[in-house]
Amino acid sequence: MASAAAIHHKAAELGKLAVEMTTAAGSGHPSSALSLAHIATHLMYQQMRWDPADPWHPTADRLVLSEGHAIPIIYAAYADLGGAIGKTKAAAQTLTVAELNELRARDSMLDGHPNPAEGFPFFDAATGSLGMGLSVAAGLALAARFDKSDRRIYCVVGDGESREGQIWEAADFIVDHKLTSICAIFNANGEGQADIVSEQQAPQRLVEKLTAFGWNVVDIDGHDPDAIAKAFDGFPAEDRPLAIVARTLKGWGAEPLRGGNWHGKPAPKDKLEETFASLDQSVAAFPEEKLTRPKSPEAPTTPDRSDPCSVEWPAFADAMAAAGLGDSLEKGKLATRRAYGAALKAAGELLPQVVVLDGDVSNSTFANMFAKAHPERFFECKIAEQNMISAAAGMARAGFIPFASSFAKFLSRGCDQIELANISRANLKLCGSHAGISLAADGPSQMGLTDVAFFASYATVRADDRESPLCWFFHPADAVAAYHLTRQMCLLNGMCYMRTHRPDVPLLYAPDTTFEPGGFHVLNSGDNLAIVASGYMVHPAKQAVAELGKQQIRATLIDAYTLPIDGERLAEALTRAGGRALVVEDNYGGGVGSVVAEIAARHGGIRVETLRCQRIPKSTRSADEILDYCGVGVNNIADQALALIKRPG
Amino acid sequence: MASAAAIHHKAAELGKLAVEMTTAAGSGHPSSALSLAHIATHLMYQQMRWDPADPWHPTADRLVLSEGHAIPIIYAAYADLGGAIGKTKAAAQTLTVAELNELRARDSMLDGHPNPAEGFPFFDAATGSLGMGLSVAAGLALAARFDKSDRRIYCVVGDGESREGQIWEAADFIVDHKLTSICAIFNANGEGQADIVSEQQAPQRLVEKLTAFGWNVVDIDGHDPDAIAKAFDGFPAEDRPLAIVARTLKGWGAEPLRGGNWHGKPAPKDKLEETFASLDQSVAAFPEEKLTRPKSPEAPTTPDRSDPCSVEWPAFADAMAAAGLGDSLEKGKLATRRAYGAALKAAGELLPQVVVLDGDVSNSTFANMFAKAHPERFFECKIAEQNMISAAAGMARAGFIPFASSFAKFLSRGCDQIELANISRANLKLCGSHAGISLAADGPSQMGLTDVAFFASYATVRADDRESPLCWFFHPADAVAAYHLTRQMCLLNGMCYMRTHRPDVPLLYAPDTTFEPGGFHVLNSGDNLAIVASGYMVHPAKQAVAELGKQQIRATLIDAYTLPIDGERLAEALTRAGGRALVVEDNYGGGVGSVVAEIAARHGGIRVETLRCQRIPKSTRSADEILDYCGVGVNNIADQALALIKRPG
Repeated sequence: MASAAAIHHKAAELGKLAVEMTTAAGSGHPSSALSLAHIATHLMYQQMRWDPADPWHPTADRLVLSEGHAIPIIYAAYADLGGAIGKTKAAAQTLTVAELNELRARDSMLDGHPNPAEGFPFFDAATGSLGMGLSVAAGLALAARFDKSDRRIYCVVGDGESREGQIWEAADFIVDHKLTSICAIFNANGEGQADIVSEQQAPQRLVEKLTAFGWNVVDIDGHDPDAIAKAFDGFPAEDRPLAIVARTLKGWGAEPLRGGNWHGKPAPKDKLEETFASLDQSVAAFPEEKLTRPKSPEAPTTPDRSDPCSVEWPAFADAMAAAGLGDSLEKGKLATRRAYGAALKAAGELLPQVVVLDGDVSNSTFANMFAKAHPERFFECKIAEQNMISAAAGMARAGFIPFASSFAKFLSRGCDQIELANISRANLKLCGSHAGISLAADGPSQMGLTDVAFFASYATVRADDRESPLCWFFHPADAVAAYHLTRQMCLLNGMCYMRTHRPDVPLLYAPDTTFEPGGFHVLNSGDNLAIVASGYMVHPAKQAVAELGKQQIRATLIDAYTLPIDGERLAEALTRAGGRALVVEDNYGGGVGSVVAEIAARHGGIRVETLRCQRIPKSTRSADEILDYCGVGVNNIADQALALIKRPG
Repeated sequence: MASAAAIHHKAAELGKLAVEMTTAAGSGHPSSALSLAHIATHLMYQQMRWDPADPWHPTADRLVLSEGHAIPIIYAAYADLGGAIGKTKAAAQTLTVAELNELRARDSMLDGHPNPAEGFPFFDAATGSLGMGLSVAAGLALAARFDKSDRRIYCVVGDGESREGQIWEAADFIVDHKLTSICAIFNANGEGQADIVSEQQAPQRLVEKLTAFGWNVVDIDGHDPDAIAKAFDGFPAEDRPLAIVARTLKGWGAEPLRGGNWHGKPAPKDKLEETFASLDQSVAAFPEEKLTRPKSPEAPTTPDRSDPCSVEWPAFADAMAAAGLGDSLEKGKLATRRAYGAALKAAGELLPQVVVLDGDVSNSTFANMFAKAHPERFFECKIAEQNMISAAAGMARAGFIPFASSFAKFLSRGCDQIELANISRANLKLCGSHAGISLAADGPSQMGLTDVAFFASYATVRADDRESPLCWFFHPADAVAAYHLTRQMCLLNGMCYMRTHRPDVPLLYAPDTTFEPGGFHVLNSGDNLAIVASGYMVHPAKQAVAELGKQQIRATLIDAYTLPIDGERLAEALTRAGGRALVVEDNYGGGVGSVVAEIAARHGGIRVETLRCQRIPKSTRSADEILDYCGVGVNNIADQALALIKRPG
């Protein structure tokens, strides 16, 4: 164990680097970094079992810096220890102290907040939007338990940050799942951005809250090396996770950077010397001593993984029968959400790395089919979607394929968490059930109406680590499509979102139909116009096509089950269908209608109209009624199709 | 005070109605409703000071049913008391017991979850997506304090629901702001949807947590009328809000509906008789007694409001000078976020009902200009955006004009809360600062990239209570636009979202330029193509137009500062500009590019391409660098414009 004096001197040395690099960058958070100087030093030089030359080591202890803006102190220690940086292990270089001054530069791997994808593999997931780190830590800890690794997960949370409800969702989840390998350190420096931290986040209050949430809690001076070291005595305990509430000073040791106005501000160049002198002075009373090297990680274990592309998937009917859906299948009607559940169950049998998380609605999403078959890989997150999504992202970053499901509506609580998962390039699979309006009776508080716009937005951007969008959007119209698209979600590397629906719907497809990312299916051919639909809306659109047929209108029917969609091929199909397209959707704007319009407006010569949910829905007793109420029922579609055909030009 | 026997009998009577109406509807939550039978009876017949004939009464006590699915018991009591229903007071009718069986029907005002906009004015805001009610209650309590009304706010929260982090954000906020007129009742029936409630939400744990959060806490049997009545002794206290943890039974009194499988399931018709008999039996031991009528509300006070349309707004330069921005103005460069702050300050002086909420970033959003001028109307929400948005929605429903601001990125934590505010038709104003990528150095965890798609989705749907979209989207390119659009946000009834940016930008507009909802401005005219931009992107687009000019390319430049946008007029402008448009955006897809494409694809004869953020951003030290990195810099725009002009067809 290192002496307190050695920690003090290292803390001051790293503090100077943190101050210097932020001044060089012209922005950043030196004062927050300084409040963590001793804690970061203890963790990275003493406590954590890891190898700076191999931050990818699969059983090394991990740090999640939930208060991401404090990162300069981590960069400083990492460079001092000669840590490896790079987007891949093959391309690894050693971070030098000189490179610290490239902080936040375009060509630097040292982003303003933790961002492993840019080449800082010490972290697993991006943080910086506050309140998410403890959930990520939970995901990493769950993954480690599965991989039979005893790696420990340290998570640093800001005191102001602990106002975010997600922190308390994570605190509950960690206790529920006995993730005792987690140590959360609350950095209580008492100063926020705009003002001081509320009394509700004062150290004593945090101690009381964490105790009430069932954690072991230690309350220490976060600049006392001996107190810090002692706080970890007995960690990990068998029964409870550990929380350390560390009382710290924002701008510790650097008098010129103390006080409320220094949040997120680098020291001016002309104050650097004075700041360095102040830091030196703050540790001058301690004899200069060297720190020992960090501990080594445990020997790696062999995680249990299979290649999703090389396993043999059961035929659709067999998968349904195995999930007890044989009877429904015979009747020819099956909800997409049920087929999703059956597909998950099959995936679980083929791929040991598939895990499923759900938020107390697994008997609605049908994730419970997986839970029954593979209870050890099902994680009940209860009613706390933000934590569910970030924890799933953590598991993804540890090499699992997590499926997280809830109502589409409730996943919209986690938009910011989904964004951070995307920045982390997490291989996360999301399924939103009860999407759109077809659930009818429960009313608008349960209906996902903006999910298509949100996920379609990601579908417009290409991920630079692979040949795919930031997120695939899948929208199955029947059980066959839902089954095969769930399989695709396993095969694809990267985020995927699938939208399922409540009602049982007739089967549209032969069991072995192919569903390709980017593809679509033509269900009927006609040259008067094309009706483009997806998901539940394919069914009323099909009825409308039949109605139009009675009036001698020949309509093409396209099932646009994926975004992004092959624009060239779609433009061709629409041109063949007379160059007029009506898109129908059970959501608000920004979805398939917008995508088809963009394709048409780029291609030229194709007219597009969109019929979408035209008002805020309410409760009705049937899907037909709510479709009609929102202006997207069978008659609305047929009428709009006729109007489009009659339009001049 | 009523006798326990009278409460018991009323609880059973209401319970029978709750069971009957859900069976008639074919869906709903009788078992959850029954767990609240005594609490609802006590609140609505005894505790609350209100007049069933006038639920709009401005000083009546209010109930927020955060666990919205338990609503049948409220409907039952309301009908029994002859409560008024209707979308307006003028159109009020009395709800009859017979009408209860229309629950969830298309033409019924009795939605599946609390939905005042459909005609159930007993509630202020829609609930049903869990975890939001306590924040709404906080907003109502803040509003009441302002209006000098001593109305009390009761809020019922489910035990499983209290897993949502937002509940704890609200718990902190209520203590911070000493909202002691709030009583939160935690309905601890121990049964969730998919499974039993976690031990983390067990009654004793809830008591410990609430105590640690600084609440007065009472732990009672929620089916004991005397215990319920006694729990309110001393409420409201002067120092702390009151929490009642009520131990209840899901399916209380109705043996056929007891047990874990009865969540969200109505009794089958053939079990009704048995269920009614069981409820009768459960109270048979108590003598039959009548309940007294509810208490009357306090006499109304006169809230302080001004008509936003009739006040005289200061000229732009005066407003900027009043906010201390005169110097910047003289230099000709000013960030839109600063102008927003100055406009808020001016609005505060003109309109007593304007209030501002911010999440510890008011010195970044510049909401602090309002805070300094009107501290009593500024509410610091700390780092908890979900609570901020729902509390603001509560204030809006109480007649205030709340502006809630944070980084655009962090508002995306509240997408579900924004949706519920929309269902509530809340006159909520949101401002997301540091939108897009121009903030550069802090990196992607701070950048709003999906906000445009999300809010543009609402802009496609018309609110049926007014001639406007569900949400106006405003995207000012300079300080003049930001000032006038903030003013528009005050004038418009309904939700508005404004996107501001970090960098100082040159002024583009004369101080008295008009900015209309639905409008756009043509900043340059040319007939080779149109470049359409908004917000920060107008500036690089302007530079690109100048570059193109050097190559004899005549480009029209359009500032599309609002969505929805006048499609007819825009199509005309694009046609005049040669029928080719390049839209440039600093966000992911689904934004202005999609909207312009939809207009073009509907109109015909206009080709549209969109240049948008093409990859996940990282830190760079300047806005120019990050624009270039993401493929939307000046050169990218000019190159893409040339390519578009050269494209055949």
